[in-house]
Amino acid sequence: MELIRTLTQMVHSLRARGIRRRVAVVCPKDSHTEYVIIRALREEIAEFLLVSDTADMEMAYHLRMASPDFVRVYEAETPDAAAALAVELVRTGEADILMKGLINTDNLLRAVLNKEKGLLPSGGVLSHVAVAQVPLYHKLLFFSDAAVIPRPTLDQFRAMIMADVALCRKLGSEQPRVALIHCTEKINEKFPHTISYVQLKEEALQGKFGSVFVDGPMDAKTACDAHSGQIKGLASPVVGNADIMIFPNIESGNTFYKTLSLFGDANMAGMLTGTIAPVVVPSRADSGNSKYYSLALACLAGNEPQNECL
Amino acid sequence: MELIRTLTQMVHSLRARGIRRRVAVVCPKDSHTEYVIIRALREEIAEFLLVSDTADMEMAYHLRMASPDFVRVYEAETPDAAAALAVELVRTGEADILMKGLINTDNLLRAVLNKEKGLLPSGGVLSHVAVAQVPLYHKLLFFSDAAVIPRPTLDQFRAMIMADVALCRKLGSEQPRVALIHCTEKINEKFPHTISYVQLKEEALQGKFGSVFVDGPMDAKTACDAHSGQIKGLASPVVGNADIMIFPNIESGNTFYKTLSLFGDANMAGMLTGTIAPVVVPSRADSGNSKYYSLALACLAGNEPQNECL
Repeated sequence: MELIRTLTQMVHSLRARGIRRRVAVVCPKDSHTEYVIIRALREEIAEFLLVSDTADMEMAYHLRMASPDFVRVYEAETPDAAAALAVELVRTGEADILMKGLINTDNLLRAVLNKEKGLLPSGGVLSHVAVAQVPLYHKLLFFSDAAVIPRPTLDQFRAMIMADVALCRKLGSEQPRVALIHCTEKINEKFPHTISYVQLKEEALQGKFGSVFVDGPMDAKTACDAHSGQIKGLASPVVGNADIMIFPNIESGNTFYKTLSLFGDANMAGMLTGTIAPVVVPSRADSGNSKYYSLALACLAGNEPQNECL
Repeated sequence: MELIRTLTQMVHSLRARGIRRRVAVVCPKDSHTEYVIIRALREEIAEFLLVSDTADMEMAYHLRMASPDFVRVYEAETPDAAAALAVELVRTGEADILMKGLINTDNLLRAVLNKEKGLLPSGGVLSHVAVAQVPLYHKLLFFSDAAVIPRPTLDQFRAMIMADVALCRKLGSEQPRVALIHCTEKINEKFPHTISYVQLKEEALQGKFGSVFVDGPMDAKTACDAHSGQIKGLASPVVGNADIMIFPNIESGNTFYKTLSLFGDANMAGMLTGTIAPVVVPSRADSGNSKYYSLALACLAGNEPQNECL
């Protein structure tokens, strides 16, 4: 499979392979969600199970009327009940993907994380992966975690790497290059994540993550700019050529996401991983394009197990 | 004074006002340092006291030969002795600014932080301020801390705000707008810096930082993009219009710096604050332009006390 280098190519790839996923949407009530649904129907990458609450079914019925063959509607008493029902549709295999509409993220996540009836397997690690298409970079950049895990533990770092590597492979990268981000190359006990990085590199050499390159600590520029690496005398398959960036904490991951999307003129996609199916939780300030690409990314990730690199 | 909106304007302002600072350079031995010195001499914003070690004086003498009226040379036995001597020149008032050449940053900082003979006043807080000129932003962006303080305490946050506000005023901002950065707007005990932010906003209202606006927590995009603020229903003088961004930890500050400079096509300047005179410590991977603008920024900051907003 050829490496997918842009988010548009990602959509083309879905269409060329005839992949059309079933997406359960919780509370489709806002114009952004409507835009994503209509565009996905038009570009034939998804069909929809729209789950909303009795008080506000208008948009759901309207969308069904326009595309009766590809839209089904489900009614629940409350938004929370809609979330629980949509999660149930994914659990029973009637839907491949869960997507958030106009419902509070915390309420949606409560249904996703419900121990008996949710989507996270026992012992699973919920994390967020973002994919950025940046004009000044030569390929897509995958990174974690801008949204979910505040201070990753060693186990959480492992899960993030596995999920991101699995996704990166689905976009055609045979040997993903993983940069473990810090502000310098120095390993320092004052920064416990740099100690975790040493362990993760060791595990990568032992084959724990499959065929990958893992290197770090290094700063965000060194990971993506060969010239910076040369100046610092660093040489590795990762330096200047990262596919995946693992950030040490949520503040740095979130800052990378926001800075790229605002000042890097980037198009972004993102989804939750670790669950039995992809979960799409668009951020309010994301562009319509980003929200659509997030759904397309989830369609590509599909409903196979996430950690297939093992 | 008119607001300076670009780094080029900053240099023009220095020249228009006839400001010419005396800069002590430690170990001028590399082509980057040479470039900065020659350009500053040509643009008449500085004169130089070049301090190097006996083993490698060549570049220093060469520069003096080319500009005998504006370059003096000092010889020390070792690079560490050169650092100590340059610091002494600043302490005694013979130089206004300290600048790093080809010497390990840790070794230079040891001289700067020496308790008896260094440049940090008792109780002072050493921090780093960066100034970014980003094509997609309408003015210069000041931010801390990308380089020095790992996890700012409340006192360190205060010192960072004071130093950045003082510098921002020197570039013509009468009422700097300070954004306290986090990944969301939520105040949360799991993130102690968000609790510090509440206190800092209270102190700002009490006038502790002079005439400023301080707001947060907010994410990096909300600080600089009015549209994001609107979507989130946030309104304040800071949202979408920040002059200064205070980051919660060094990983997020450093990520902002590196991402802007690599993917935001930004020109950067930076210096250390809290010391009795500005200290310029260019990063290896910075461009020649960035290194020159860092010196110009320090020239503008001058040798007056840093915390004049009090």
